[in-house]
Amino acid sequence: MSDTVTTRRMPAWRARSGGGIDGLELREEPEPVPGPGEVLVAVKAVSLSYRELLVLRGEYVLPVKDDLVPVSDGAGEVVGLGPGVRGTRIGDRVTAGIFPYWAAGPFGRPEQLPQLGGSLDGLLAGRVVLPESALVPVPAHLSYAEAATLPCAAVTAWHALEGVRAGDTVLTLGTGGVSLFAAQLARLLGARVLATTGDPGKAGRLRALGVDEVVVRGEGPGDWPERVRALTGGRGVDRVVDVVGDLPRALRALAMSGEVALVGFLGAEPPALDPRALFGAAARVRAVAAGSLAHFAAMNRAIEAGRMRPVLDRVFPFEEAVGAFRYYADERPFGKVVITV
Amino acid sequence: MSDTVTTRRMPAWRARSGGGIDGLELREEPEPVPGPGEVLVAVKAVSLSYRELLVLRGEYVLPVKDDLVPVSDGAGEVVGLGPGVRGTRIGDRVTAGIFPYWAAGPFGRPEQLPQLGGSLDGLLAGRVVLPESALVPVPAHLSYAEAATLPCAAVTAWHALEGVRAGDTVLTLGTGGVSLFAAQLARLLGARVLATTGDPGKAGRLRALGVDEVVVRGEGPGDWPERVRALTGGRGVDRVVDVVGDLPRALRALAMSGEVALVGFLGAEPPALDPRALFGAAARVRAVAAGSLAHFAAMNRAIEAGRMRPVLDRVFPFEEAVGAFRYYADERPFGKVVITV
Amino acid sequence: MSDTVTTRRMPAWRARSGGGIDGLELREEPEPVPGPGEVLVAVKAVSLSYRELLVLRGEYVLPVKDDLVPVSDGAGEVVGLGPGVRGTRIGDRVTAGIFPYWAAGPFGRPEQLPQLGGSLDGLLAGRVVLPESALVPVPAHLSYAEAATLPCAAVTAWHALEGVRAGDTVLTLGTGGVSLFAAQLARLLGARVLATTGDPGKAGRLRALGVDEVVVRGEGPGDWPERVRALTGGRGVDRVVDVVGDLPRALRALAMSGEVALVGFLGAEPPALDPRALFGAAARVRAVAAGSLAHFAAMNRAIEAGRMRPVLDRVFPFEEAVGAFRYYADERPFGKVVITV
Amino acid sequence: MSDTVTTRRMPAWRARSGGGIDGLELREEPEPVPGPGEVLVAVKAVSLSYRELLVLRGEYVLPVKDDLVPVSDGAGEVVGLGPGVRGTRIGDRVTAGIFPYWAAGPFGRPEQLPQLGGSLDGLLAGRVVLPESALVPVPAHLSYAEAATLPCAAVTAWHALEGVRAGDTVLTLGTGGVSLFAAQLARLLGARVLATTGDPGKAGRLRALGVDEVVVRGEGPGDWPERVRALTGGRGVDRVVDVVGDLPRALRALAMSGEVALVGFLGAEPPALDPRALFGAAARVRAVAAGSLAHFAAMNRAIEAGRMRPVLDRVFPFEEAVGAFRYYADERPFGKVVITV
Repeated sequence: MSDTVTTRRMPAWRARSGGGIDGLELREEPEPVPGPGEVLVAVKAVSLSYRELLVLRGEYVLPVKDDLVPVSDGAGEVVGLGPGVRGTRIGDRVTAGIFPYWAAGPFGRPEQLPQLGGSLDGLLAGRVVLPESALVPVPAHLSYAEAATLPCAAVTAWHALEGVRAGDTVLTLGTGGVSLFAAQLARLLGARVLATTGDPGKAGRLRALGVDEVVVRGEGPGDWPERVRALTGGRGVDRVVDVVGDLPRALRALAMSGEVALVGFLGAEPPALDPRALFGAAARVRAVAAGSLAHFAAMNRAIEAGRMRPVLDRVFPFEEAVGAFRYYADERPFGKVVITV
Repeated sequence: MSDTVTTRRMPAWRARSGGGIDGLELREEPEPVPGPGEVLVAVKAVSLSYRELLVLRGEYVLPVKDDLVPVSDGAGEVVGLGPGVRGTRIGDRVTAGIFPYWAAGPFGRPEQLPQLGGSLDGLLAGRVVLPESALVPVPAHLSYAEAATLPCAAVTAWHALEGVRAGDTVLTLGTGGVSLFAAQLARLLGARVLATTGDPGKAGRLRALGVDEVVVRGEGPGDWPERVRALTGGRGVDRVVDVVGDLPRALRALAMSGEVALVGFLGAEPPALDPRALFGAAARVRAVAAGSLAHFAAMNRAIEAGRMRPVLDRVFPFEEAVGAFRYYADERPFGKVVITV
Repeated sequence: MSDTVTTRRMPAWRARSGGGIDGLELREEPEPVPGPGEVLVAVKAVSLSYRELLVLRGEYVLPVKDDLVPVSDGAGEVVGLGPGVRGTRIGDRVTAGIFPYWAAGPFGRPEQLPQLGGSLDGLLAGRVVLPESALVPVPAHLSYAEAATLPCAAVTAWHALEGVRAGDTVLTLGTGGVSLFAAQLARLLGARVLATTGDPGKAGRLRALGVDEVVVRGEGPGDWPERVRALTGGRGVDRVVDVVGDLPRALRALAMSGEVALVGFLGAEPPALDPRALFGAAARVRAVAAGSLAHFAAMNRAIEAGRMRPVLDRVFPFEEAVGAFRYYADERPFGKVVITV
Repeated sequence: MSDTVTTRRMPAWRARSGGGIDGLELREEPEPVPGPGEVLVAVKAVSLSYRELLVLRGEYVLPVKDDLVPVSDGAGEVVGLGPGVRGTRIGDRVTAGIFPYWAAGPFGRPEQLPQLGGSLDGLLAGRVVLPESALVPVPAHLSYAEAATLPCAAVTAWHALEGVRAGDTVLTLGTGGVSLFAAQLARLLGARVLATTGDPGKAGRLRALGVDEVVVRGEGPGDWPERVRALTGGRGVDRVVDVVGDLPRALRALAMSGEVALVGFLGAEPPALDPRALFGAAARVRAVAAGSLAHFAAMNRAIEAGRMRPVLDRVFPFEEAVGAFRYYADERPFGKVVITV
């Protein structure tokens, strides 16, 4: 079947690990051809996550291929099918898991590690080839731009909330992509949500998303963990979605038998954890690395039932991808930065 | 310690199994005295459930004591403490589990079977003695009248929803107490909710409670299971909360690998189930008998986080309890019928 | 790649739904060629299950293709790889899930339904082509003949035991393939195991497999459910693995809040279930249809850790397949009947 | 009822936090009287755990009462019932949870914290009064001496294994009480078990308990985490039951997505954890503080089904309690040290 595909051209951004935003380069390339079990997707939108900055800075923890099409997150329309594709049709609206070979279950087998926009090319291109097994349908009520925000940040938030039950109290930190999704998804799950922010001007927008209580860091008496604890009658929260990596503080905000979902690190040198602090709180700390395709699909069912919509901060056209990266890196967007193709 | 309690008088309704609504009798009685591990509660409100009619008709499936203070569901204020009470204080606002000795875990050990308003006196009295271990705090945002509706119907609905995940589709049947709570609680859990009703006039009120789709029985083409299935794109629902006991129909509305939570029977002779129908749907059927104190407490956490309020149909004063029973039996209330004390 | 495969010949048995054992036919056929995402497996052994008889009798509940290579269960060695195969190597020892497209999660999406030895060709042939995604490695300590017994009967038993915890009591019925595996696997899980049998001579062999108590049907006072109950101090068992489909009896043997895992039906007309019997036991009934590839893999991990070995009754050579089917149908084997290739 | 109990005398050991083993004192005391909801137990045996040494050294993390009857773990026979006791009978063989008010669910509410042999008197006395709700029946096949070993070490091990599934690999460290129980219980659950020991002479005894592989620390090439990993084909173990508190090493032995159950600390200054090590392993660390009464009861069911027997190292008579403590502190017992009363 592959010999029936004519060689068309398409635009693609290329980058390299450590090349920085300035290293992004727009090229005209031959359209890729789907092999066995693969599909060709016309990308409609991608979204930026913190991982993209780490990749460009050369600080990403997983391997990054040379001459990379960057950006793990995107959504588009299926326009071609390789041989052996069984369940996908031309015209399907799809996103893809950032770990295309992590179907379900626990993470960590070597074959699960390839990652879009890392060891594999990402989605910042006109057309991309993806394994059929990596595709996840776009929720019916979402646009491509909205769906493009889900693969990394929302799935990470969903995974970080695993085990949260209606009535639990969840704490999110700041207004980055994972934290906003965690706040929205925790509400979907029936949790009470507390959020911190360093910017008093964002408190109202957090409340509008459904956050029950906002703690503005630097305001009021005491450090934020103590203020969070006070807002829970001294008990602490059942779950901290920790995008900062400050486990000592997270544990101070945590209820006995609660869990810190460790999502990442903002600083270079996260504080070490005294295991006695963990023991004293009868706590769990769980590292969360995005999520499986099964996580993604389950989250989408919840998003559809709750008709949840991602928060978009700003949308850039494809040619202004460099500007989009700069904006994402320098401003403090409230919601996702999207690039449409 | 018991000899320090003066013998005060209080009003109490008494009934007997099979005595019917006409057999209800208002008496003046000595106030009961809390023994070891017990508390004295000034009842503020009770609510009626279908089980109360079964008790009065002599059709209740569990043993019923002679000369019964009827009604399993109520809420009140703690006004006295027996010896050995550790964690309760005068003034606490409380409800009680209808199975006061079913703390947690699976149901069925003989010691879990005693039941308020059944083998034990219920709450239709000025003051009642309850084991401390049976008490559940009233959610802070609820009145006594609202909290009085929870022990039987809401806890049953919560238990029937066990295992429902955000994004699942839940079907409720009709507008009885359990069904309305199931619809509200399923929304709290992030589910999509479908409801049937025989009364077109109630469709709007169901939607106002958060129901996504209403099927009016007798309207439109086909029986309700087929219409439910059509509303789910042919897939069926993940959970049926079946208060009717019509398993063949419930299975026809169910998605593959779904579950019917069997809550009770409206008719005397429920249809038998051909196990091949179960097998063909890879389905589960689970019988649900109210719930444990742990269920009750977990539900209250969810109700508080979601600031959910029970639906009250009508409130009667204590002296008009007979009228309340008649109203509950003859009219088709939308929401709970409450008697305040 | 496919054009590099020379057309070799191989033997294969063919059958048709309703053709009976006499309709089995041995043919010489061209060796199949693996397409995209497929592998070629040299079959080493297959095993017979009750489903094979249903297929030959025309009584199988799922669709059966024309001119079928029968038998869902087998094991062999990978000898060829189609294009796009990523994780399999020549020489791998493999079995396959009988539902090759049911990867994980609940059963029932249409794409999960194709079945080896049913709507798809089975394994009673020299070489077969299988989708790579359907493969499950053979546990290291098992022979091909032993591994060939696992796909249908053992996976069904494992799935039927889902949720069983160490210390639970499990009841198996008779000495068919699923029941023997259920007894062995329940022991691996730390359960106490009771088994019924109609044949006093088999009681000792059941005990040798780890069964704690054997009830010989027809011996002693009372029907077997009552005798099972007596052996549990009147409490009943936590799980019945019901291969017979007699739910009324299964419920009489069940503890309150227990579960009947309904695996199949031995007679044509299984007794109907009065839902009040279910309600009175606060029970669950769950229909079990084999299991997913994830079930299979998880079971194999347990089998390896416990160094469990399947029970083989008798092994036939490939040419005597008809004799093997006759033996399986007419005798009452204790353990699996295997055909080596 | 209390006035019918004559004031009898009994022996009791008393101790104080920080008083050391030398501070243990044998006294003659009035027999205690069970209050409401309490029972009187004639202690038959107690067992020593590491926590007892911490209490005597003044290093225990939870509050310790003055003039303490030490030792949390014991078993005995019910010989008296206070008012309001419902489900216990004279003659019952019982143990008690070390947290008598932690019935079930997560740990950490203030009312769950009182602890036998800590803020409450323990069991090193002829007779003790215990809340009825704290009692757990002695498994039928165990002696009092055997049952006395369960409350602290075995329940902790059981709780540390929570979530382990048949086929998982579990690592235990050394031959202390919790580690031996963890090895035995992990086998009951169907896990593969690896154990470390610093004493080559104990390797055979570990294997006799069912341990699959023993790593003798200090023997062979590399540190023990690397040797453990090598024994799992480089994958690592699914669960480490860490009684040492060396999280960096535990993580090096752990499979991706595995869990370290942190049970305690052997040294004064446990090494701090770099959260990046946790993140790199997609791991969980969970602090485990003994377990609830529900844990204890569930474990006993498993112990009964598997007819597991605790390992006793040595049994001392009541008068030689000081010698028992010295032996436990100075020798390296393989199995529990028991004092019979």
